[in-house]
Amino acid sequence: MGIVVKKFGGSSVGTPEKIKAVAARVVREKKPDDQVVVTVSAMGDTTDDLIELAKQVTGNTRSREMDMLLSTGEQVSIALLAMALNDLGCPAVSLTGPQAGFRTNSVHMKARITDINPDRVFEELSRGNVVVVAGFQGAAPNGDVTTLGRGGSDTTAVAMAGALNAAVCEIFTDVEGVYSADPRVVPTARKMKEITYNEMLELARLGAGVMQPRSVELGARYGVPIHVRSTFTTEPGTMIREGYTVEEKDFVVRGVTHDLNVAKAAIMGVPDKPGIAFRVFSALAEANIDVDMIVQSIRNTDKKINDIVFTVAKNDAAQTRSILEKVAADLGVLGVVIDEDVAKVSIVGAGMLGSPGMAARMFGALSGAGINIEVISTSEISLSCLIRAERAKDAVNAIHAAFFRESR
Amino acid sequence: MGIVVKKFGGSSVGTPEKIKAVAARVVREKKPDDQVVVTVSAMGDTTDDLIELAKQVTGNTRSREMDMLLSTGEQVSIALLAMALNDLGCPAVSLTGPQAGFRTNSVHMKARITDINPDRVFEELSRGNVVVVAGFQGAAPNGDVTTLGRGGSDTTAVAMAGALNAAVCEIFTDVEGVYSADPRVVPTARKMKEITYNEMLELARLGAGVMQPRSVELGARYGVPIHVRSTFTTEPGTMIREGYTVEEKDFVVRGVTHDLNVAKAAIMGVPDKPGIAFRVFSALAEANIDVDMIVQSIRNTDKKINDIVFTVAKNDAAQTRSILEKVAADLGVLGVVIDEDVAKVSIVGAGMLGSPGMAARMFGALSGAGINIEVISTSEISLSCLIRAERAKDAVNAIHAAFFRESR
Repeated sequence: MGIVVKKFGGSSVGTPEKIKAVAARVVREKKPDDQVVVTVSAMGDTTDDLIELAKQVTGNTRSREMDMLLSTGEQVSIALLAMALNDLGCPAVSLTGPQAGFRTNSVHMKARITDINPDRVFEELSRGNVVVVAGFQGAAPNGDVTTLGRGGSDTTAVAMAGALNAAVCEIFTDVEGVYSADPRVVPTARKMKEITYNEMLELARLGAGVMQPRSVELGARYGVPIHVRSTFTTEPGTMIREGYTVEEKDFVVRGVTHDLNVAKAAIMGVPDKPGIAFRVFSALAEANIDVDMIVQSIRNTDKKINDIVFTVAKNDAAQTRSILEKVAADLGVLGVVIDEDVAKVSIVGAGMLGSPGMAARMFGALSGAGINIEVISTSEISLSCLIRAERAKDAVNAIHAAFFRESR
Repeated sequence: MGIVVKKFGGSSVGTPEKIKAVAARVVREKKPDDQVVVTVSAMGDTTDDLIELAKQVTGNTRSREMDMLLSTGEQVSIALLAMALNDLGCPAVSLTGPQAGFRTNSVHMKARITDINPDRVFEELSRGNVVVVAGFQGAAPNGDVTTLGRGGSDTTAVAMAGALNAAVCEIFTDVEGVYSADPRVVPTARKMKEITYNEMLELARLGAGVMQPRSVELGARYGVPIHVRSTFTTEPGTMIREGYTVEEKDFVVRGVTHDLNVAKAAIMGVPDKPGIAFRVFSALAEANIDVDMIVQSIRNTDKKINDIVFTVAKNDAAQTRSILEKVAADLGVLGVVIDEDVAKVSIVGAGMLGSPGMAARMFGALSGAGINIEVISTSEISLSCLIRAERAKDAVNAIHAAFFRESR
């Protein structure tokens, strides 16, 4: 079958017993001609424990040193998994991200992969080894250890699959695939057999925690099919690829998501002059803060002042506030508001553009549940509404019921 | 004062509080013109915990993967210490062993340093950084992580001091310096102000746990003065250097040591033919087992058969037994004996060769305490006796009293 890349997350390798179970599964599923690369995350809560340790040393952690610290988590897992594989008579060798050829930029704690040199991986594969690669990490141009940010192990797996021209990248996780909504929130949610890269990307971007958006982008770029499946069963999960091979055509909307890791930021009473928005968003870009759902509205046509509203990730909220307050002071605006009690609910589907009435159906569902919409934004394949955080669960259920009635 | 290398062991960095205390000390002692490199071990029991983790995964750990695993311990410490230093306003950067330029051979778990390229360290020092280097580790020619074996952080510190041509290498530890005997065993033991490399080397080789022998060798080779001192006080400790600058001439014997990490190995009834000893000891050398106190004695002149007795480290005992049994089967000897209930007690002093009666005084002390001597071996500056392990404490006290009477 060729080269297969498998990725196991932190909960799949949380204890020595689970590591042995992963090793057993890898050995059991390996066909004689397969060349197998396994990517793993840090064991269970290791990353959180290391962050806690750093906080006990300093209130002001430094990202370069955090990367030095956090990258040890994956290094422990790969060594243990390689030992467990060897124990089962399966020759295996572990490689850190830098050893496996991952080169990144120098943005510590959220580095981007710039290049992969898989020579060492090919060499070990050709020697008959299963290669166990540390997820989440790489080397900056100066040789410093970098990490790709949370969820970076998915990125490692897919990028490695792309660099190796692998037949498939299997992402083993604690859910059984990609669902039409989070099954913990919506009990009637359905597992999808297939989904396109673009849809998955949009789902991930909008809060579906199954896959890291960057890893889905990479899958699309390299054309690597990504199989999202459960660590705990042998059932097929959801295949992410370019187009559909099976028919699930009844569902134009493929998923309903909600995202609580969002904060609303607003600059009120901005003078209506060219260059203002540029000024605001370039300051945020410089700080590597991702901005979403930007809406500019007219506050007062006579005075020619506007409000600019947008969303950021919750953990960027404090930094966003200080950046906005600095910009606001320079520009003489009315005020800056940061609101962390919001949630974003969204519908996603590649066919939405050609199916009128989707927006109306979503707004109707929210209205029916008595939920107020604060901001709306759309993309080609999605529609998102910002609402109060405490109504997120109700909103997702109402929307899901409106689009997936037949599965009730 | 130039470049100073400081090394703090695992017990000095065992908790976040202790790491902060080490950072505070480094900052407090740093003179404006000093360039400082700090080497640290893994926090407290981390290395043992990682070994335990590996044992839960496999009964048959692999040394390459153990190095991948164990090297994470120091990586955690360096990251935390660099953060703690930065927190105190002292710019600092952490480097793994490979990043700091340590190249080793490929003997995993007890690698030897083959070369140090300190370019990156010099670069960071010239930027005004305190450089925090992971002890105990390096990179093999193929880029794999290696470790130097237990105590390897001392080796890292001294070798780094040599490569940087440092003014001094300070080894901070949980004792106040080098004592005439282990103070936990001999309450009247004295702290020595100075000691030569050769004496220290012999003390270390013979069981004084203060310094790793290999690190003392390196100190001698590069002429780096090594200051062994306490983490918990600011008192000077013991300076290890080429010759004496102060007078402690009353003591020809500089130290009395005991070593319980020793096993006696014997091959009984070996045919008296050329090449037999070569055969035995080359097999052990191939397995990287260090051999000490070799004695060959004639068992039976008529039959021309001999006994060969020697000592190895206790953790090499099992492997030694299997090697000897294989050789024994080939040669047709009478038998192989491994005895782990032994201890080695020794006296060390550079002036011993010119001072007659030292051996007699040692044997007299042992005889006076009713302790039987099983094997004797000598070097230019030491004399060792193998005795029953349970008499080690009595032996050291009796010998110490005989040589350091005036300190009673």
